[in-house]
Amino acid sequence: MAELVTLGETMLRLSPPTGERLETATRLECRTAGAESNVAIAASRLGTDAAWLSKLPESPLGRRVVGDVQRHGVDPLIAWSEDGRQGTYYLEQGGEPRATDVIYDRADAAITSATTGDLAVEAVEDAELFFTTGITPALSDTCFETTRQLLEVADRTAFDLNYRSKLWSDSEAASAYEALLRDVDVLFAPERDVESILGIDGQPRTVAETLRDRFGCETVVLTRGEHGALARTPAGTVEQPAIDADTLDPIGTGDAFVGGYLSRILDGEAVERALAYGAATAALKRTITGDLAVVTERAVERVLDDRTTDIER
Amino acid sequence: MAELVTLGETMLRLSPPTGERLETATRLECRTAGAESNVAIAASRLGTDAAWLSKLPESPLGRRVVGDVQRHGVDPLIAWSEDGRQGTYYLEQGGEPRATDVIYDRADAAITSATTGDLAVEAVEDAELFFTTGITPALSDTCFETTRQLLEVADRTAFDLNYRSKLWSDSEAASAYEALLRDVDVLFAPERDVESILGIDGQPRTVAETLRDRFGCETVVLTRGEHGALARTPAGTVEQPAIDADTLDPIGTGDAFVGGYLSRILDGEAVERALAYGAATAALKRTITGDLAVVTERAVERVLDDRTTDIER
Amino acid sequence: MAELVTLGETMLRLSPPTGERLETATRLECRTAGAESNVAIAASRLGTDAAWLSKLPESPLGRRVVGDVQRHGVDPLIAWSEDGRQGTYYLEQGGEPRATDVIYDRADAAITSATTGDLAVEAVEDAELFFTTGITPALSDTCFETTRQLLEVADRTAFDLNYRSKLWSDSEAASAYEALLRDVDVLFAPERDVESILGIDGQPRTVAETLRDRFGCETVVLTRGEHGALARTPAGTVEQPAIDADTLDPIGTGDAFVGGYLSRILDGEAVERALAYGAATAALKRTITGDLAVVTERAVERVLDDRTTDIER
Amino acid sequence: MAELVTLGETMLRLSPPTGERLETATRLECRTAGAESNVAIAASRLGTDAAWLSKLPESPLGRRVVGDVQRHGVDPLIAWSEDGRQGTYYLEQGGEPRATDVIYDRADAAITSATTGDLAVEAVEDAELFFTTGITPALSDTCFETTRQLLEVADRTAFDLNYRSKLWSDSEAASAYEALLRDVDVLFAPERDVESILGIDGQPRTVAETLRDRFGCETVVLTRGEHGALARTPAGTVEQPAIDADTLDPIGTGDAFVGGYLSRILDGEAVERALAYGAATAALKRTITGDLAVVTERAVERVLDDRTTDIER
Amino acid sequence: MAELVTLGETMLRLSPPTGERLETATRLECRTAGAESNVAIAASRLGTDAAWLSKLPESPLGRRVVGDVQRHGVDPLIAWSEDGRQGTYYLEQGGEPRATDVIYDRADAAITSATTGDLAVEAVEDAELFFTTGITPALSDTCFETTRQLLEVADRTAFDLNYRSKLWSDSEAASAYEALLRDVDVLFAPERDVESILGIDGQPRTVAETLRDRFGCETVVLTRGEHGALARTPAGTVEQPAIDADTLDPIGTGDAFVGGYLSRILDGEAVERALAYGAATAALKRTITGDLAVVTERAVERVLDDRTTDIER
Amino acid sequence: MAELVTLGETMLRLSPPTGERLETATRLECRTAGAESNVAIAASRLGTDAAWLSKLPESPLGRRVVGDVQRHGVDPLIAWSEDGRQGTYYLEQGGEPRATDVIYDRADAAITSATTGDLAVEAVEDAELFFTTGITPALSDTCFETTRQLLEVADRTAFDLNYRSKLWSDSEAASAYEALLRDVDVLFAPERDVESILGIDGQPRTVAETLRDRFGCETVVLTRGEHGALARTPAGTVEQPAIDADTLDPIGTGDAFVGGYLSRILDGEAVERALAYGAATAALKRTITGDLAVVTERAVERVLDDRTTDIER
Repeated sequence: MAELVTLGETMLRLSPPTGERLETATRLECRTAGAESNVAIAASRLGTDAAWLSKLPESPLGRRVVGDVQRHGVDPLIAWSEDGRQGTYYLEQGGEPRATDVIYDRADAAITSATTGDLAVEAVEDAELFFTTGITPALSDTCFETTRQLLEVADRTAFDLNYRSKLWSDSEAASAYEALLRDVDVLFAPERDVESILGIDGQPRTVAETLRDRFGCETVVLTRGEHGALARTPAGTVEQPAIDADTLDPIGTGDAFVGGYLSRILDGEAVERALAYGAATAALKRTITGDLAVVTERAVERVLDDRTTDIER
Repeated sequence: MAELVTLGETMLRLSPPTGERLETATRLECRTAGAESNVAIAASRLGTDAAWLSKLPESPLGRRVVGDVQRHGVDPLIAWSEDGRQGTYYLEQGGEPRATDVIYDRADAAITSATTGDLAVEAVEDAELFFTTGITPALSDTCFETTRQLLEVADRTAFDLNYRSKLWSDSEAASAYEALLRDVDVLFAPERDVESILGIDGQPRTVAETLRDRFGCETVVLTRGEHGALARTPAGTVEQPAIDADTLDPIGTGDAFVGGYLSRILDGEAVERALAYGAATAALKRTITGDLAVVTERAVERVLDDRTTDIER
Repeated sequence: MAELVTLGETMLRLSPPTGERLETATRLECRTAGAESNVAIAASRLGTDAAWLSKLPESPLGRRVVGDVQRHGVDPLIAWSEDGRQGTYYLEQGGEPRATDVIYDRADAAITSATTGDLAVEAVEDAELFFTTGITPALSDTCFETTRQLLEVADRTAFDLNYRSKLWSDSEAASAYEALLRDVDVLFAPERDVESILGIDGQPRTVAETLRDRFGCETVVLTRGEHGALARTPAGTVEQPAIDADTLDPIGTGDAFVGGYLSRILDGEAVERALAYGAATAALKRTITGDLAVVTERAVERVLDDRTTDIER
Repeated sequence: MAELVTLGETMLRLSPPTGERLETATRLECRTAGAESNVAIAASRLGTDAAWLSKLPESPLGRRVVGDVQRHGVDPLIAWSEDGRQGTYYLEQGGEPRATDVIYDRADAAITSATTGDLAVEAVEDAELFFTTGITPALSDTCFETTRQLLEVADRTAFDLNYRSKLWSDSEAASAYEALLRDVDVLFAPERDVESILGIDGQPRTVAETLRDRFGCETVVLTRGEHGALARTPAGTVEQPAIDADTLDPIGTGDAFVGGYLSRILDGEAVERALAYGAATAALKRTITGDLAVVTERAVERVLDDRTTDIER
Repeated sequence: MAELVTLGETMLRLSPPTGERLETATRLECRTAGAESNVAIAASRLGTDAAWLSKLPESPLGRRVVGDVQRHGVDPLIAWSEDGRQGTYYLEQGGEPRATDVIYDRADAAITSATTGDLAVEAVEDAELFFTTGITPALSDTCFETTRQLLEVADRTAFDLNYRSKLWSDSEAASAYEALLRDVDVLFAPERDVESILGIDGQPRTVAETLRDRFGCETVVLTRGEHGALARTPAGTVEQPAIDADTLDPIGTGDAFVGGYLSRILDGEAVERALAYGAATAALKRTITGDLAVVTERAVERVLDDRTTDIER
Repeated sequence: MAELVTLGETMLRLSPPTGERLETATRLECRTAGAESNVAIAASRLGTDAAWLSKLPESPLGRRVVGDVQRHGVDPLIAWSEDGRQGTYYLEQGGEPRATDVIYDRADAAITSATTGDLAVEAVEDAELFFTTGITPALSDTCFETTRQLLEVADRTAFDLNYRSKLWSDSEAASAYEALLRDVDVLFAPERDVESILGIDGQPRTVAETLRDRFGCETVVLTRGEHGALARTPAGTVEQPAIDADTLDPIGTGDAFVGGYLSRILDGEAVERALAYGAATAALKRTITGDLAVVTERAVERVLDDRTTDIER
């Protein structure tokens, strides 16, 4: 029985080498990426017993995704499908002034037809915490309904807004959030999404407070990019600055933060410690190619102990 | 004004290195592949003025396909689309007793919505020869209709049955062929498709004769894999044995044959010469990784002159 | 509770690209390899609930081995060690008349100190079948003793002689086999090892019979390379020819055979079916780079149905 | 009929991976590079109908150059030669304090014998603008003469000084410039070359003015590296700051600037817009590996709109 | 007869591509690295006649090390061994806040059994200068004794403290240094080692003075990382600032410094020049992947002349 | 003082991966290759003290060639040149019916101006054997003259006809051979060159006899490809069959044969043994990518002992 169960789509990520363009590159690196499996992987690597629910095509591509997730100790609870595609996305890293280019190719992925009938609902019921993000309900109406039902049946829930403008409009997202957040205990809310989608801005503390009041969440974690994060819990507010990093690949930073945070909360540690773990896991992720936070507790703690990065030999 | 105009979908082909599996490979080679652009490329490289019609997404992926086709001298006449995907396919080369694995991921590709209103119909009308294959009408009802109309408006047409069991059923294909082949002047017919889809078997000469009679094609070229090819024209029947090759990558062999054949026919040469050119182009293709026949007239003629493959230095 | 539990060392396998030499190559492919985890992986991929016991260094290298095994669904039951190395081996594929070169660098690997106190003995006790090979007792005196004890406590056992001349002498191996085989129910015996180490030769049937009598094993599976395999069970003798393969990488073929065989036996199928599964899994393995049989039931059955390896598309 | 016709040598560029040295690297990336084809490619990608004149060896190397240029939509008008080499250059990127190393291996390239008799003079005559750089006349006496004649026959001309100390001496270059610039309408003049070769220094505006007066050019564009660019036209002077970039590969920046500039001028846009387009194209180029500005109008305009480079997804 | 003879272990260095982790990378770059061969290589490339003593396994791995050293002109004087391993180390480059990870796998390397009986003692006796580092005596008791004896028999000696916490404790190192430094003429002393192991801190000049007095060395070169270096000789004290570098790979920087310094001293040049050469060689090394300073006198002098790193072409 | 001194041009060899074409490949493998350094390397690796004379450009490319040769223990005696190119050749491996393509780009290489004044003539005088091939005199008139003089001053000489049709005509070669062979003691003569250039055909024994008589060579070794080799010495005739090999890369096979042969002759062994060594070295070479015979005495003897190529582990 897993402590943490997450639900979401996991894609193949295809990317050319740094400095090469999708238009001309002859080799693509093939990795596995999905917000909710990223979170499960980060938490699992930091000691959490984690499972991940999804629906995938019965094909080498689907099996590949499972293998890449499973290797990090996450238990994959998969609805295998003869129909539906393996979602992919193409990623071309940018550099000032060239924007990073993300091309989603995820329409009609197998998961878009995932109902609670397909998925291991009992694992969600039994979990200490169920987690998903705003990406899942955006995938299809079916996925929205499945998300809603699982948030309802779960004992305790966490949710990251994770707004994706390529999946739905602002107003669609806003309605969905309204419908789903009532069932959310721990809300991770990127400051920019809170402002652009939910129309709440102001001082971070006030924003977190407003969110908490509006949706009745127990805890709101406002994530603020380079400005760090802030958690509003029943006990008050805690702030955490971001940790500087040599950023090689920023994709997955937010998921690493959430995974690090949840791993400590599920371990019974204080919010202060959870925020710090989240920030350190996120900083480490930025130095690693790929969406995944390939970290260890030892490495996270080394960051928190602020040790030198001199080579030890 | 191109001598040869072809119509069809061109995909990205993603393949792991030899001996590695799609399930575990970390790098995929990214190439460009499509039966009809393969034919245009082979013919163009052998001296034909060729153009290729398609509909592609306005994205780095679509531009990449165009660039890869255009570099071989083919004129791309593209309907650019803001909707629709770039079709892809995953290819894992096998080896006895492991089958080569092809995973199509081409549903809802931009081309599936291509109407004659989108495409450069006048290029088809002006061409000496219009070519497409049985893949195109299989892509969507719209594509079927577009294929039908273009075969009709073209002055002279060539068509390769190219049956794909992953795109439609035997009976769907059979009906479509019945509807389309009346407008075909030169028919390339793989022996196995003729038997399994059109239900015609027997001696190759008889099969070609039957096809010619049934559909009223001027020429029927029966392609028989390792058994070579046979052309039935108004002037009689010509046979051509296959040319032995060290096969590194068999995909695209049929297209290379057609491209080689058409290049000579459009040059006013005899069917004997065209068949020989087709066979040599096909044999060369088998030694080259990727779908494309990256050949030259000099190289094809060297094969036909049966010169040694000793290294010249 | 796993159906199959295996015990053994798993190494990093470092190999240069084909045709390049260890002496001059600048890049090495890094894979994971070990007879007993290979068997667990093959069986797991074919539907067996499998676990693997080992002792590994607490390091990125040890974690990598675990991840590579775990990704195929095997449950790793690891004794993590602060001491001891990660075993490695260098593999340079040969080609007539150049021998394939294997350089073991496995002395003092963490596993050499593995006692039953370190390992999950209860998993062995609870398993339907415990499997290890002649490599494990050859690693150290401690490993020999651990192997002996686990063969004793297991309910039902399988063992592959797997003689390694670089690990011990013929006579050391012979003594060890004498001491261990009394506790073995299913013995996999490479014909060449039976002759050179145990001094038994003659007709395959007689050899299997003699082995069975000498050690009191319930079943003896004599593996004969290109000559196939032969199983002597209480019910009689069954033979299985080898299945032809385009061999890209022969390493791990024997383990694939054992994994395929055990997966069917544990599924309650007949010895005939198990032998056939073993042979097909082994043939598929030979077409894949790396020690691992990255196969599926579907692919094995396709081989057994003797389907064409023509590309389906 | 092309709007823009350029003339020049295009080489293979062979470069080791970042941080590796030519002396020890075992793999070289092979790209295509030449100032004048770079300009044609940048302009073509930004909407200009462009052609490129050159003389190349009839070999896979020559064909490769043509394919690499043609894929970006430029029409290659090639004099194929049985004699003469394919020019190459070796590029090893440096890093403070190690200088970037360029080794030219272009002596006796096929183009060195290119006369107007070889080349498509009518394309030059028909073009809206003919462009070449100071590299072309430096290649050989024949090339100097050919350059001179084509500048003469062209209706309207643009020229980039592009001084190369490895091709000729300061005084040779100065004499050639004196002889050629009388026929130039739009002169691109790197500030450092103007000073060191033509001996003109001072305030940028004065320098541009002096150049314009001395050679009678209609427009002088002074390119000043990180200090931006300045255009002196009949209507007055326009300045453009450089746009900051994360520079991955600086080679080809100047050509990207010229291509971007000319694409707007040929489109009838104002000099201000042309300079801005040049600066943005140059900045984008710096983030891309290789000599080529693999850009689009959309990407350039995004830079000019000063949009965030945040990932959109 | 070599001017410079060095003694030490040289390892294979296995490293994943930048941004990839040892735990998941599928390819490792294989290079050759060892402090004392690094020094010999740097000096040899800068004109010194250099030899290197070691003991290596008779295997492709040992031969590879020899080839990689020999290619830079160093004469390898090798005791070939049938026993003993080839030492390796795994290197994963970090990035703020992730530490660079070095995993030594060098226990029981062939060199650990190297006695003066194995090695070319006469080469040491005949050399102008014998050099080794604090790594060598840390490898084994035998190596300590061999180091001691060779420092004794050599005419003139140089030694770099090079403390390695993964090889021995502070106190073991301190005792060994006490025993060995009496025979050292030129001592290279990293400031941090001097403080942590020898317990000497204070103003750099005072530290160098103290070291010189304590051990009776003729010259002490205190190396201070980004703060440069300082040499205390009989003639007084000379300081040298560090030279800024775009650091791609810092490993081997210290060895490059020593190699550069010794090359000038052995050439009879002044300490000022030697320090400058050392600093420039070190700065160049930082821009190059791998432990080796693949430099030339011309490149070093270019740095010292403070020339632009603009591309010359 | 080297036992064997060879003279010749050594080039960079640039080749695309197997199955890719020079026209489209984006990465080229960069290796070092030259008949006479190949021979020196093979002999050196088999125990001969070998040196190699050449003239190279003072550049990273020239230094690279030296490093690649030197790493195999050959002493490079180089005339460094500020002028002249580094010769290169492009190699695209073929496959039936596609010919392997060799594009020489070696005109005006530094060596073409090499006189005896440039080269270490005393090393030739002191050597036990001086070796070069018919490639060297074909490079330039100067090279012809230098070859002639060195064959004259050498004590004992060996020469391989090595006819290259891309360097000179049949008649030029024939005249040169006539002029040079009088000074040759050991002649290696490919059967096909003997027939096509020297016009001698017939039974191999007779051909060898005729050659020996015509030019007064002490020994003639007729090399006959897959038909093996035959040596005619004062003592009579010895024949050696070719040894079967899985050919991955045939280039350099002849040089490997010569290197293997000479290594034994210089060791005082019999012609029978030398021929066998040559054949085994050649067979091993064929299994290795690149021109170089990266072999050892142990490996050659293993072939001659006809041992199994089973994996030993």
